[in-house]
Amino acid sequence: MSLNFCFIGAGNLATHLSTALNEKAGKVIQVYSRTEESARTLAQKLNSPYTTSTKEITDKADIYFIALKDAVVADVLSEIDFQNKLVVHCSGSLHMAVLNDFSSNYGVLYPLQTFSRMRRVDFAQIPVFIEANNSGNLKILTTLAHKISESVTEMDSARRKSLHIAAVFSNNFVNHFYTLAADFLEAQNIPFEVLHPLILETAKKAQEMNPKDAQTGPAVRFDETIINDHLHVLEKYPEKQALYNLISRSIFEHHQKK
Amino acid sequence: MSLNFCFIGAGNLATHLSTALNEKAGKVIQVYSRTEESARTLAQKLNSPYTTSTKEITDKADIYFIALKDAVVADVLSEIDFQNKLVVHCSGSLHMAVLNDFSSNYGVLYPLQTFSRMRRVDFAQIPVFIEANNSGNLKILTTLAHKISESVTEMDSARRKSLHIAAVFSNNFVNHFYTLAADFLEAQNIPFEVLHPLILETAKKAQEMNPKDAQTGPAVRFDETIINDHLHVLEKYPEKQALYNLISRSIFEHHQKK
Repeated sequence: MSLNFCFIGAGNLATHLSTALNEKAGKVIQVYSRTEESARTLAQKLNSPYTTSTKEITDKADIYFIALKDAVVADVLSEIDFQNKLVVHCSGSLHMAVLNDFSSNYGVLYPLQTFSRMRRVDFAQIPVFIEANNSGNLKILTTLAHKISESVTEMDSARRKSLHIAAVFSNNFVNHFYTLAADFLEAQNIPFEVLHPLILETAKKAQEMNPKDAQTGPAVRFDETIINDHLHVLEKYPEKQALYNLISRSIFEHHQKK
Repeated sequence: MSLNFCFIGAGNLATHLSTALNEKAGKVIQVYSRTEESARTLAQKLNSPYTTSTKEITDKADIYFIALKDAVVADVLSEIDFQNKLVVHCSGSLHMAVLNDFSSNYGVLYPLQTFSRMRRVDFAQIPVFIEANNSGNLKILTTLAHKISESVTEMDSARRKSLHIAAVFSNNFVNHFYTLAADFLEAQNIPFEVLHPLILETAKKAQEMNPKDAQTGPAVRFDETIINDHLHVLEKYPEKQALYNLISRSIFEHHQKK
């Protein structure tokens, strides 16, 4: 039995998830986005119809995937009659229970990855976390998730939120430090590309070693000569200087507590 | 003409650099470390003699590589008579001029990478930055560096220090955020391994996109609902809460300034 999907939302996550589902688990029969360009772009990619009006959302889908910003989910969903079909959101931090107002069948499918429209990712390698309001829906989501990913785990909303926080630390904050480094190098006319091998190796190490054991550099050994020297160079960049000081202390204290 | 090298220092950087030089550019004829175990381990790997006494350091080497902690370089070197042979340190932040007291021929060879003894790295892919006290020594180091790396750049001490600071941001600080994420997940009984694909993809993205353009997450769009929700969950972890707050603000402000 082939499943029909409707996507509410057409951003980065929707693009990658709908593509994986369309290839491996059924058919996306409609894409909705308030923004016409987003809706059309994704619909063309999936070879499916689209709409920008919640009134025109199909009643023929078996599962409705909600890939919207958390803050607008309730407002958008209140405009749609799901006729108690299975409604599934894809957010890390949004509690599953918010869907209770809109259908008697609902769940969560959260792929833990950073998505950019232009970068292809191998969805099979992405850990997917699922939750559902009853065992029948959980079974449907489990079967579905296994078709697109090799790593499927059941997880409740509170723990999924913790996972999202850890993802913020290891993606959003990490990427911000790449940005600060790029910024600083640009001011010295040094191309950011020189850091590429270091950045990649740092991430690869974390796949094989406990990151605490992999920590190197002046802060972990509290090499005050180098730290003070670096802080001095950063005088002209007060924000970077403050962060350098704070994170160095955090590293040192964290490793003292062993 | 084959060159003979002596390594003063036998830590992670010395291990990888001496191995690359021994394979591609000449022969390591002696390893010195104050710590016998370190000296012996590296010497065995290189099939060379070792010593733990500065008095026994060979006078037969063409180039002496100094791979010591910055703070002890001057003390150790003052115990050695280099007879004006070429002395080369490998530090990011140490000024080349500190070598002027110990030989009339000196320089720097700084490989920009994070080294762990147990992890093999492809040295050819590591960017190497060189500097020398005159054009003859620069020529020697240029030829040598090209034998072990495909990326060789001349850079003075002030700019090399900036590069080191950027490396601290993109390795030391990044790895600390992996550690904080691992720590937090451990407290929720969630295995750190679930973050592996995200961590790797974050680093790969930075190889292809400007990291500022790759920034995603609640902070860059100032999604106060999620940020406040995460800060609330982090109540029990005051250090992580403070960092979450500070880095989120930094991300937001940095992207406002566009």
